[in-house]
Amino acid sequence: MELDGLKEEVVSGNQGIARGGLARFTFGNVSGIARKEGLVVIKPSGVEYDALTAADMVVSDLEGNIVEGRWKPSSDLETHLVLYRAFPEIGGVVHTHSEYATAWAQAAKPIPCYGTTHADYFHGSVPVTRMLRGEEVQEAYVHNTGMVILECFRERKIDPLAVPAVLVAGHAPFCWGKSVEEAVHCALALEYIARLAAHTASLAGNCAEIPQHLLDRHHTRKHGPNATYGQAATGGCRGDEIKTK
Amino acid sequence: MELDGLKEEVVSGNQGIARGGLARFTFGNVSGIARKEGLVVIKPSGVEYDALTAADMVVSDLEGNIVEGRWKPSSDLETHLVLYRAFPEIGGVVHTHSEYATAWAQAAKPIPCYGTTHADYFHGSVPVTRMLRGEEVQEAYVHNTGMVILECFRERKIDPLAVPAVLVAGHAPFCWGKSVEEAVHCALALEYIARLAAHTASLAGNCAEIPQHLLDRHHTRKHGPNATYGQAATGGCRGDEIKTK
Amino acid sequence: MELDGLKEEVVSGNQGIARGGLARFTFGNVSGIARKEGLVVIKPSGVEYDALTAADMVVSDLEGNIVEGRWKPSSDLETHLVLYRAFPEIGGVVHTHSEYATAWAQAAKPIPCYGTTHADYFHGSVPVTRMLRGEEVQEAYVHNTGMVILECFRERKIDPLAVPAVLVAGHAPFCWGKSVEEAVHCALALEYIARLAAHTASLAGNCAEIPQHLLDRHHTRKHGPNATYGQAATGGCRGDEIKTK
Amino acid sequence: MELDGLKEEVVSGNQGIARGGLARFTFGNVSGIARKEGLVVIKPSGVEYDALTAADMVVSDLEGNIVEGRWKPSSDLETHLVLYRAFPEIGGVVHTHSEYATAWAQAAKPIPCYGTTHADYFHGSVPVTRMLRGEEVQEAYVHNTGMVILECFRERKIDPLAVPAVLVAGHAPFCWGKSVEEAVHCALALEYIARLAAHTASLAGNCAEIPQHLLDRHHTRKHGPNATYGQAATGGCRGDEIKTK
Repeated sequence: MELDGLKEEVVSGNQGIARGGLARFTFGNVSGIARKEGLVVIKPSGVEYDALTAADMVVSDLEGNIVEGRWKPSSDLETHLVLYRAFPEIGGVVHTHSEYATAWAQAAKPIPCYGTTHADYFHGSVPVTRMLRGEEVQEAYVHNTGMVILECFRERKIDPLAVPAVLVAGHAPFCWGKSVEEAVHCALALEYIARLAAHTASLAGNCAEIPQHLLDRHHTRKHGPNATYGQAATGGCRGDEIKTK
Repeated sequence: MELDGLKEEVVSGNQGIARGGLARFTFGNVSGIARKEGLVVIKPSGVEYDALTAADMVVSDLEGNIVEGRWKPSSDLETHLVLYRAFPEIGGVVHTHSEYATAWAQAAKPIPCYGTTHADYFHGSVPVTRMLRGEEVQEAYVHNTGMVILECFRERKIDPLAVPAVLVAGHAPFCWGKSVEEAVHCALALEYIARLAAHTASLAGNCAEIPQHLLDRHHTRKHGPNATYGQAATGGCRGDEIKTK
Repeated sequence: MELDGLKEEVVSGNQGIARGGLARFTFGNVSGIARKEGLVVIKPSGVEYDALTAADMVVSDLEGNIVEGRWKPSSDLETHLVLYRAFPEIGGVVHTHSEYATAWAQAAKPIPCYGTTHADYFHGSVPVTRMLRGEEVQEAYVHNTGMVILECFRERKIDPLAVPAVLVAGHAPFCWGKSVEEAVHCALALEYIARLAAHTASLAGNCAEIPQHLLDRHHTRKHGPNATYGQAATGGCRGDEIKTK
Repeated sequence: MELDGLKEEVVSGNQGIARGGLARFTFGNVSGIARKEGLVVIKPSGVEYDALTAADMVVSDLEGNIVEGRWKPSSDLETHLVLYRAFPEIGGVVHTHSEYATAWAQAAKPIPCYGTTHADYFHGSVPVTRMLRGEEVQEAYVHNTGMVILECFRERKIDPLAVPAVLVAGHAPFCWGKSVEEAVHCALALEYIARLAAHTASLAGNCAEIPQHLLDRHHTRKHGPNATYGQAATGGCRGDEIKTK
């Protein structure tokens, strides 16, 4: 059953962000999608990571109708759904309040591409959304959080697979990938890159981003048809390189 | 016996702040109150956290008369008592010198509400008291530490349940909650939020706080009669979400 | 035999600074003195902390003549001896390159007394020496490192028991105490205080030190004849309160 | 067989940088050279550190012809080879994206020699290369990364044994040593020194480097014919002093 396997992946992804130190509060959450069935599996709200089992997972359709589960879903479910509907290539979404990525989101600044570590994961700076307006917050806050992410990617013509992460201003990051595992690895990479960038900005006030030719070279080294890194060439966020703690 | 259970809670709260890395010095201390009996249970002074047992706890009435215990109480007892007398809804008080919250207290700056992580716990910036005056320090230093906290909340009309923490200028934070457990969780959240805010201030010199509509939305999501977060709606400081390390 | 016990204390002190994260390089070193015999016990040079035993310790008289030991003494021995000769009340000396204390030493800035955590251990800012001159380095570098420490304390009339630590400019801290254990605890406190002060300075550019009345109140709370902190009043650096990690 | 022993050293060096927290991404890599045979042993690309065995190692000659191994070599192999060809005294090379050293590389700033911790390992500031030009990136990126390192050392007349590390601008550090073990220890020391220097720069905006006489004194204390540190005098990067974690 595809859904059973996906539940295990989502449990293990949620525990992965906790183990990786990205989720000190239970509002970090990981979801995955079974595209054929059109069903999303997500962490229940406010339940601790250690204790999660596949049976605790909540299953929703793409419109947010709960199909299965004994708990309320993560309160961020609507944001995940907006992303799954808009980005058909993605298979997993991760939301955390990880320390340095959240600091950049709070500062309402994109994370500049200061080096090749960044370029290996994100083809350009990691963008930050605009702040949500009063009526957007009052009406349908969680759904509108997804909508400002889409607006950000559409207006700036960013390819969500080339830059698989965003900072929601005054809030925190969302990451995604072709699979749950990739999305989790992306979140781990993002936090490390956010940390490097914060130190860099502290050392050099007006630090320049790396030149375009270096950005392109590094990104295509790991992504797309001509990828040369690792033992096999794969596209997407090469999260499996971040296993090493 | 309510008091016996409370002693266990206070032992476990004191060990919780040590385990959570908030109390590298023994002057971090946790207390709880049995409202019906009007008795406060507090850590003894200068004793190590690991070794604490319920039998080591000191019991005081609300005027500071020691009712039970073989040790001297924490030297901060008088501050705890001022808080218990002034804030009748609270059941636990925590004092630490945790790293980033103490840095903000030393800088004599309130912690601005830069993001939703903060808004989930504190409905507005975490205030800082004024510095104690010479005569206040000489007369009744520990008692007066409590008095400047009250002055701070009264003058600025802050609801102590909406903002269950304060920074004492040149000193360190005090936190509280409806129970000992909530107060401990509040202290853990405060340290993480202080850390996020320090990084944010470093990235964006004059960073704005989040708009009021976002602050309100996040705070009411977790607190008060319309709380929607987690599996059950509860008011107060939702500390139980911070278990995950 | 007093000397045997002292060797055990020095082994345990050296392992304490390693365990406490203060000594990532083997040039962190701890010594102790048997005042009656006029003998100093110190760590051997370049030997790892884990493997140290009492039999590895080097014993020197106060003039630097090696009395016992199969290894060369720590290359900082001469600095320790200068301190033991000049400060007759001290029983232990600790030298580390711990992260934040060393950063202040490299910045050639004293650590300002920004809060009560600092005041509990040091009665005023932790001073920094002047930089050693060329001829002082060429002649008798290690001995002269001790001499600039003495010069610093004498010129500024600082009582070495009221401020039991110093930063050597461009180098790193030295700490001391009435016993080896106190000196080690002082080094642990110094690193935490240096860390708090660095964050404070980052949050508030021109942060003021705490007023004299608060400094005095906190220091006399833990030190001298009227100490009230802990279960027994003792003078000196109250290191035993820092056990909790 | 020298090559078998070297493979074990390279496995253990790669695991050493992972254990030491320097390589959260698999593109950290360690190599060693058998000078007599003219063969270089290097980590395979994109394989996790924990699982590495001697049989996974890739063997290349100095021109980059793969002589042995079932995996593709680390994608940084060409940079290692340039260094081995140009610096005949070195026996090991380490590349990491360690946190603070990478931040300095991204800031495109050399690490100034702010203190004796630095002077003990590097006889002067750790230099940073210029940024690679577009055509250099397109042609032979990895080889040219090595070439800008050589250019940097030649133009500034730096002795690669006196300063056994470099920062590649917009990328990350490379370190080396007389043996694989020395190179690994150098990478560990570099990260600690980069961390100290970042804190120092944050505390004192325009901090001066230590005077030449102090730099010389510390460096010759540990290196060259008159070394006095440790139990035996050895030249090169005295990495074995950094074992203590």
